[in-house]
Amino acid sequence: MLSNNTLINRVVKVVRRAQGIPTPDVFEVVDAPMPTLPSGGVVVRVLFTAADPGMRGWLTAETNYQTVPNGAVMRALGVGEIIESDAPGWAVGERAFGWFGWQRFAAVAVGDLMWKIDTEVAPASAWVGALGVNGLAAWIGFSHIARPRAGETALITTAAGGVGGVVGQLAAAAGVRAIGVTGSDVKVKAATEELGYAAAINYKAVDDLSVAIGAVCPDGIDIFFDNTAGWIADAVFPHLKVGARVVQCGTASVASWLPVPQGPRRERDVLVKRLSWHGFVMFDHREKFDQALTELKALLSAGKLSIREEVLEGIDQAPDAIGRLYRGDNIGRLLIKP
Amino acid sequence: MLSNNTLINRVVKVVRRAQGIPTPDVFEVVDAPMPTLPSGGVVVRVLFTAADPGMRGWLTAETNYQTVPNGAVMRALGVGEIIESDAPGWAVGERAFGWFGWQRFAAVAVGDLMWKIDTEVAPASAWVGALGVNGLAAWIGFSHIARPRAGETALITTAAGGVGGVVGQLAAAAGVRAIGVTGSDVKVKAATEELGYAAAINYKAVDDLSVAIGAVCPDGIDIFFDNTAGWIADAVFPHLKVGARVVQCGTASVASWLPVPQGPRRERDVLVKRLSWHGFVMFDHREKFDQALTELKALLSAGKLSIREEVLEGIDQAPDAIGRLYRGDNIGRLLIKP
Repeated sequence: MLSNNTLINRVVKVVRRAQGIPTPDVFEVVDAPMPTLPSGGVVVRVLFTAADPGMRGWLTAETNYQTVPNGAVMRALGVGEIIESDAPGWAVGERAFGWFGWQRFAAVAVGDLMWKIDTEVAPASAWVGALGVNGLAAWIGFSHIARPRAGETALITTAAGGVGGVVGQLAAAAGVRAIGVTGSDVKVKAATEELGYAAAINYKAVDDLSVAIGAVCPDGIDIFFDNTAGWIADAVFPHLKVGARVVQCGTASVASWLPVPQGPRRERDVLVKRLSWHGFVMFDHREKFDQALTELKALLSAGKLSIREEVLEGIDQAPDAIGRLYRGDNIGRLLIKP
Repeated sequence: MLSNNTLINRVVKVVRRAQGIPTPDVFEVVDAPMPTLPSGGVVVRVLFTAADPGMRGWLTAETNYQTVPNGAVMRALGVGEIIESDAPGWAVGERAFGWFGWQRFAAVAVGDLMWKIDTEVAPASAWVGALGVNGLAAWIGFSHIARPRAGETALITTAAGGVGGVVGQLAAAAGVRAIGVTGSDVKVKAATEELGYAAAINYKAVDDLSVAIGAVCPDGIDIFFDNTAGWIADAVFPHLKVGARVVQCGTASVASWLPVPQGPRRERDVLVKRLSWHGFVMFDHREKFDQALTELKALLSAGKLSIREEVLEGIDQAPDAIGRLYRGDNIGRLLIKP
């Protein structure tokens, strides 16, 4: 056990509501006392914490499934090592995945500990991404909700992102032709060479995205796994087949929903093409997590799950991390080593 | 068997593509020779034929699941009596439901005969509506796709129409609180007094439809059975609960989809509220027709399925019938007695 008085905590607090994509001034990074062991809980040294597109919704004044109020430490998933424990079954020295927040040390109630991680199966960082929320979101949205069948064509936006990169590989493993849409030639290369994609389009490098999609999907699209919404999704809809499934995983290309932006009405497409359009939030599907992790670990063992990560060194980089995601700067999972 | 040479056929032909809602000049009503018996088919005297909102899509230049080309007799479902037969199992004198078109007499291939009707169970006209396409569409969209649970709240647009009127009664029978949106006080009265609705709103009589919906659905909406799309649907979306199901059955409030009109983007609602939004076309679900008809007949026998109809006398009234539907002139099923 480490001696607490040699350690300094540093935490990222939310200090104001975000307008659209959260900018660094939404947060304040401050030194803080070391957490004290909560009754029945643990104290964790955070090894890696995450920046997720969904965090945007927690920081606005708009309706969302979750919110982080001003004054609170930024909520985030991460992996950490237990350094003090009052929780039966959670021993000092064990490593776990859970809600540890953007900070170096966290006092954690046992309900915020999700599961132990095994760093012999994969490095600690992977348990935040491909074997953590990204992998779970990809598996639940693609394997569970879209229910792919071999021979189908799936189009995925933010194809080289933390979730998209796993979807491409789940698709490849399922015999589905995965087509990626992403924002740079470097990411096109990562998608096709490493992340399971049969083809990928750099939307910044084409004159007309819809024409480019039509060229690589001449027979249409069965599954649209959408992380962007907005104009990028508009370019995809005309290529959906009758009976296509649309999975709404994110809305990264729309900067603000206050007021709700206008776009082409979709009701006629939904009707005439008999679409099934599903929104999902991973945490609604906890009963599927075991199955998802089992399948993801099997892919990893079989060498079919490449883990792309980008690690920011130091908790002081966290406030800009959500912005980086929306600027499309990263390939794969964006992590912070606090 | 009737002698053909005493009879005159009269048919409605499509002569041009419709721009938006089909106007009477899209059609021409002409006398025509009596049909001759097709090999392996039947000749039918049409007792009732139908006008359906979906016909609009068959007459435009836009993508649709079905089209009726210029020069052809208008495609329509109806009930008729077989007056000549070369089809084993289909005897002269029997009555059937099928694709007979807008005409007095039809030469019908056996594949266009859907099923025999029993006029002891319900009058012939009912087999075009509540026990025909309307009832089937209502049952498939509501009972099969939306999967209502007792205690839920469902909102239905064009609540007093041919389909909406059946959905209200299916909802009431399932213990679901049905809220109707419709376009006149007469239809509000029909909806609440006869068609199973707990409450109904005349959207033409309220200042703000969304506020009016909020007042009758203070706890939100679990199922949105949408026949209108457009601005009426926009007033409903803010009241959808997390996990709500949206069934897109029609798009009656949108006059034209060329070009696609703009409206509020729905991706964020789909994601944050985890909506399931399904388009459907009844004819994709033939394997459910038997079950649907059995349940509809049981409701009818139990006195829980009121059949509202409006009958136009004479095939010459058919060309204006689709317009009447979209003007909202009718309550219940709109039929033509040719």
